[in-house]
Amino acid sequence: MRSSRKRHARALFMMIASLALTTRPAIALAEEDAKPILGFSSGSTRPQFEAEKTALAVPSPENARRWLRTLTAEPHVAGTGPDYKTAVFVRDKLREWGWKADLVELKVLLNYPNPNSFSGLSIDGEEKGLPITEPAIAADNDSGSSSAFGGFHGYSASGSAHERVVYANYGRPEDFTALEKMGIDVEHKIVLVRYGAIFRGLKVQNAQKHGAAGILIFSDPADDGFAKGEVYPAGPYRPGGAIQRGSVQFLSMGPGDPSTPLGPSVDGAERIPFDPVKGLLYDDSWAKRTGIAKEDYLALIPSIPIGYDAAHAILKKMSGPVVPAGWQGGLPLTYHIGPGSVRVSMEINVYYAITPIWNVIATIPGSESPERWVMMGNHRDAWVHGAVDPSSGTAATLETCHALGEAVKKGWKPRRTLVYASWDAEEYGLVGSTEWGETNAKEIDEKAVLMLNVDSAVSGHELDASGVPSLRDLFLDAAGSITDPRTGKPLSEGWIAAKRTAWAADAPLVLADPVWGGDVPGGGFTPQLGTLGSGSDYTVFVDHLGIPCLDSGFKGSYGVYHSAYDDFHWMEKHGDPGFLTHAMAARLYTLIVMRAAAAPVLPFTFTPYAAAMRSHVDELRLHEAKRLRKNESPSTEAFEGQPALIEAVKGFTREASSLDAALKSVALRDDLKPEQLAPLNDALTRVERAFLLEPGLAGRPWFKHAVYAPGLTTGYGAWPLPAIRQVLEDPKSAKLAAEVDRTVRSLQKATAALHKARDQATTLTPR
Amino acid sequence: MRSSRKRHARALFMMIASLALTTRPAIALAEEDAKPILGFSSGSTRPQFEAEKTALAVPSPENARRWLRTLTAEPHVAGTGPDYKTAVFVRDKLREWGWKADLVELKVLLNYPNPNSFSGLSIDGEEKGLPITEPAIAADNDSGSSSAFGGFHGYSASGSAHERVVYANYGRPEDFTALEKMGIDVEHKIVLVRYGAIFRGLKVQNAQKHGAAGILIFSDPADDGFAKGEVYPAGPYRPGGAIQRGSVQFLSMGPGDPSTPLGPSVDGAERIPFDPVKGLLYDDSWAKRTGIAKEDYLALIPSIPIGYDAAHAILKKMSGPVVPAGWQGGLPLTYHIGPGSVRVSMEINVYYAITPIWNVIATIPGSESPERWVMMGNHRDAWVHGAVDPSSGTAATLETCHALGEAVKKGWKPRRTLVYASWDAEEYGLVGSTEWGETNAKEIDEKAVLMLNVDSAVSGHELDASGVPSLRDLFLDAAGSITDPRTGKPLSEGWIAAKRTAWAADAPLVLADPVWGGDVPGGGFTPQLGTLGSGSDYTVFVDHLGIPCLDSGFKGSYGVYHSAYDDFHWMEKHGDPGFLTHAMAARLYTLIVMRAAAAPVLPFTFTPYAAAMRSHVDELRLHEAKRLRKNESPSTEAFEGQPALIEAVKGFTREASSLDAALKSVALRDDLKPEQLAPLNDALTRVERAFLLEPGLAGRPWFKHAVYAPGLTTGYGAWPLPAIRQVLEDPKSAKLAAEVDRTVRSLQKATAALHKARDQATTLTPR
Repeated sequence: MRSSRKRHARALFMMIASLALTTRPAIALAEEDAKPILGFSSGSTRPQFEAEKTALAVPSPENARRWLRTLTAEPHVAGTGPDYKTAVFVRDKLREWGWKADLVELKVLLNYPNPNSFSGLSIDGEEKGLPITEPAIAADNDSGSSSAFGGFHGYSASGSAHERVVYANYGRPEDFTALEKMGIDVEHKIVLVRYGAIFRGLKVQNAQKHGAAGILIFSDPADDGFAKGEVYPAGPYRPGGAIQRGSVQFLSMGPGDPSTPLGPSVDGAERIPFDPVKGLLYDDSWAKRTGIAKEDYLALIPSIPIGYDAAHAILKKMSGPVVPAGWQGGLPLTYHIGPGSVRVSMEINVYYAITPIWNVIATIPGSESPERWVMMGNHRDAWVHGAVDPSSGTAATLETCHALGEAVKKGWKPRRTLVYASWDAEEYGLVGSTEWGETNAKEIDEKAVLMLNVDSAVSGHELDASGVPSLRDLFLDAAGSITDPRTGKPLSEGWIAAKRTAWAADAPLVLADPVWGGDVPGGGFTPQLGTLGSGSDYTVFVDHLGIPCLDSGFKGSYGVYHSAYDDFHWMEKHGDPGFLTHAMAARLYTLIVMRAAAAPVLPFTFTPYAAAMRSHVDELRLHEAKRLRKNESPSTEAFEGQPALIEAVKGFTREASSLDAALKSVALRDDLKPEQLAPLNDALTRVERAFLLEPGLAGRPWFKHAVYAPGLTTGYGAWPLPAIRQVLEDPKSAKLAAEVDRTVRSLQKATAALHKARDQATTLTPR
Repeated sequence: MRSSRKRHARALFMMIASLALTTRPAIALAEEDAKPILGFSSGSTRPQFEAEKTALAVPSPENARRWLRTLTAEPHVAGTGPDYKTAVFVRDKLREWGWKADLVELKVLLNYPNPNSFSGLSIDGEEKGLPITEPAIAADNDSGSSSAFGGFHGYSASGSAHERVVYANYGRPEDFTALEKMGIDVEHKIVLVRYGAIFRGLKVQNAQKHGAAGILIFSDPADDGFAKGEVYPAGPYRPGGAIQRGSVQFLSMGPGDPSTPLGPSVDGAERIPFDPVKGLLYDDSWAKRTGIAKEDYLALIPSIPIGYDAAHAILKKMSGPVVPAGWQGGLPLTYHIGPGSVRVSMEINVYYAITPIWNVIATIPGSESPERWVMMGNHRDAWVHGAVDPSSGTAATLETCHALGEAVKKGWKPRRTLVYASWDAEEYGLVGSTEWGETNAKEIDEKAVLMLNVDSAVSGHELDASGVPSLRDLFLDAAGSITDPRTGKPLSEGWIAAKRTAWAADAPLVLADPVWGGDVPGGGFTPQLGTLGSGSDYTVFVDHLGIPCLDSGFKGSYGVYHSAYDDFHWMEKHGDPGFLTHAMAARLYTLIVMRAAAAPVLPFTFTPYAAAMRSHVDELRLHEAKRLRKNESPSTEAFEGQPALIEAVKGFTREASSLDAALKSVALRDDLKPEQLAPLNDALTRVERAFLLEPGLAGRPWFKHAVYAPGLTTGYGAWPLPAIRQVLEDPKSAKLAAEVDRTVRSLQKATAALHKARDQATTLTPR
């Protein structure tokens, strides 16, 4: 039975894969127009097209499938033997394709379930404990892997609790505030919250701030389960037994190894002492040195993730008030706040250790500017098999490296050095990338031009992209040159159409905004990249070091995130049956990297940045207006310092427009020598760095970017213009005037950087 | 057991009732200020306050409770014996309180379940049929009443179907369009749709237009069931066995007796012939005479309402594609579109008959303008016991009539005649009110000043009000004089605060709108009455006759709508345990009627109407803009004729402002004689009539109001400026330019009416 089903799947795969080969990406399209690529002159466009053609022929569904099968053979949590094996595999492949590639070992603090006496969860008076591991699924061999860890949280505390339960919705600050207003005390209770809305670590942070004894985080079927569609194995969605593992680091306070808050985890680094069971021994002296209080720095109460079947068993027993509007989930009962009389017992046993992890760093040297890096990164560690997260990204970016290697073998010469990073321990808190970024901060600052981050490359077929706005046109240019074999149209078309649909449905009437006048574009439709928050390895690059980052992948109906069912079988059955999307992703990444590495003029544009800043300012204005409107008759809807901020954005906009115009003319010229363009390109590279604030954000100085940061209370989601947003959210956290002032100054610095680049561009004469 | 529980409930009631007596409505507050009532001078305010004090002392929780107990003693569907008994009860009470009151019998077409062989519903291969009646609940005696009809639809067709099932979400036009796009054919299928979003009759209309063989309409727990809160009897929400009865008349095409489309149901009226089983024999000649095609006029396919337990049993058996986003409900399974292989059998047997129904019409003559009517109406018929719908309204308005009678006995002299109407057969399609309105159209047009409609007065404690905007200030003035005993604050405060909260959360940034300039107020917060659509007895008055209408009640957690559980026990346990809200509602209605009946100058204001019209135009603009935005680069976001419409609203706004100012001065004067004010009041009364279009709306000429009508595809929900909206929704339905033009002309007529009233106001000199 099993093997015949396998043969069938294989035949289907071959059929779809051969379909893919006949619908080759239509790079020919752009070629016919002879429209120059962004940053290229007509003269440099033709050889680039030739090289791209060579490269784009390389990525194949079949290869991607093979790499994915290998990478997902075993559960490979960071720091484990199977994780090491994947590092060696990646290194060896890269070497095979002509890259210089090496393992870079780091020693960092990680936790694992205690293999001797892990954890338990039960309801008082019920004989059978609640499930904290996932049942094997007959159709899916991998799902029963004996080496998979059960449900646990990265960087969680050990501990036990035997308490009554309070349901706290998504565990956001406003949820706990609502409980307080209802007169429900969570102190010494076990808090039951559902996944979603904010990063899971912040749920733990909020619960412990309110005195909870422990926290259970479950996947609710309304957000992530049968209410979304058919569940695995019949469909792609989360079944009731699937558990979302994940880190409970307090991500919005800073990622990376939590034992080295003051710098990189290098040999001899000063570390917070830790106990194997208790975890970090973070005392007041450390709080003083980091400026972050203990309860804001790490999880102190036991936590564990559970599936919705287990949550159902608990919710069934709960009483107390009915939940307020918006708190009801998808389980077939009326949710109650609690605490009823029933108690739950939880016992969490994890152990902490300094553990080796392995980044793989690979390079292909640039021909003209070897000291300038075009980077691509992807993490490799997974909570279990991680077919989507992250192995689809590893499979796709490996095929990209394969393609780049082939192009070089066939004579393509990247002007700039290509750097590929396969990060480890991302799942624990972006550890591999963050520690590497901190270790090499000076060199990265000098050399990095941009960073393409890929996390999960494929959980479906819908293109998604986030990034700093200056990379929008590079992305669109590349996505416009790749044909989606499913639609026969350029990838960019579907992406723009989806953005337009969302805009058309949501945007209010287009009115004249007296605040902006006609100075800054806005109001109409501007397709923008998604806004970078955190939750993936771009974080250290953009937020800490000011490197322009782009993050892209293909999304879909993905219900097995961080569970034992995110495996090869799921991908083959539901995520990307023919692996067409893996190959398409590899091609998209290939074009982005090749163009960024070979363009005579860096393919940055800044008018999208200006438009994005206007919308970020408008978001702050609306946030503040909503607060003010609660007053009977607000005299203003503006916040203090708003005019100065708007002036700064207007100034940035003017310089951005003239720089973009100047770059356009420069790029078209074939008469300029590389050494003439180098200072211009360097000036363009410095614009993003100008946004860095010193010191960083109030209360979390590791974050330095004045325009982008993860929300303090969201973790994943961005708070653009974060220094100001933080004070609008919490007026006691800093002085508004001062935060507006330093944001304005950073925008002015960036404006000056634009101006300098324009000077470079306009004074170029042929030699 | 039962009787002791009763004693306990009674004790609790007495306790709460006595609490109510100590927190008497603080009419004193307004008195202290000596701020004149809207429409009153200082001189006339004081005696009015005295009279109001007398009246407001009358309504008591205990009386309301008593009337409700009597009214809900038996199921009293329109045209049945128990319905007649309630009519006599109401008439006799009114007479007792000094009203002239009479039963007005009408003969109209109604349908009932066939008592010999009603209906059946079953899934193929399952022995037990699905429930189409409701189980008795032990704690609630009334719930098991043997005289209650099972689940059926008013004006449904008889018939049977034995077909596969397709799930069509809410059964809206867009839902059927989505099915078409998915390639799902509903022809000859049984369509399963959930309640919500639009009026149920239009679900049937949409299903039969697409060729369905039958339709099942169920209450989904996500919208109306356990996902909202604890279900009855433990809580106020809908249990899985509760069935929402209701009419499947095609309400947006016109209400009333469907056998007399050309006029009132009077003796000798021309009627469409009917068959007791088949219903109306509406042939082509009738279609020609009404201008409405058969399938747009009446339900032709069998339909039945079911609870979510029954729907669950069907959905469990369904297969086919998973539903698209937004279609999943609250049952614990993934919803599928179907059609799978399983078949459902439905057999619906109803019989039609011309049946007597009984409006009760009561009056207290006015002292100065007996030929001018201030009306209050409420329907009396219920699908079962109807404790909320409508008996809470009957109990409250009876207490209002009681109070008005007492005030008159104590010497209060209403200037205008009070008219109270207790309508019958509202549930079938606003039949009693519509036929009475059509019968007396000429007299109503001459005499009616305004109409206060009350449907369900109490399903909770949150004040809700809809109406034409010229009645906003009358409503606010009255609600400002009634203290909510639960908060100790004027009722208006909570109402405005809720409106403000919704505005603050939803409104975008306040920008300058070049289209409006500074001419029309808008952008900021303007509390407005809800917009009248249809679904209650105001419809004939506002939409057909142009009478200013107000509709108000107290809403809450109401999950037993149109079920056997909407009974006295539900109300006492959940809806209004102490009947405080019933008494408060009676007081609110008392003030509205007393002020409208006694004000020297009618308490109308028109600047709210102008502001509402701006927002209605903006709604059309946004509707059209969203459509245009789907084009690549729309050259405009305006619709044809928009500038003329905006000019018309600006003109209306200017006249409204000066009239309101003039009225303010006139009302303050004590030197004017009633006969001087009569022409001004008549001029004010005519403004609303000026909005009437001749002929009425395209495709449904019964609806004549240019500003308000129910949406053609919504039934309940309003489409403001309906002549234009209909063409924007369906460009083939009429010519846009012509519809804008006649709307503009009606606004100009109304503007002229304002101007005439202002002339009246400004030329008044003391005699």
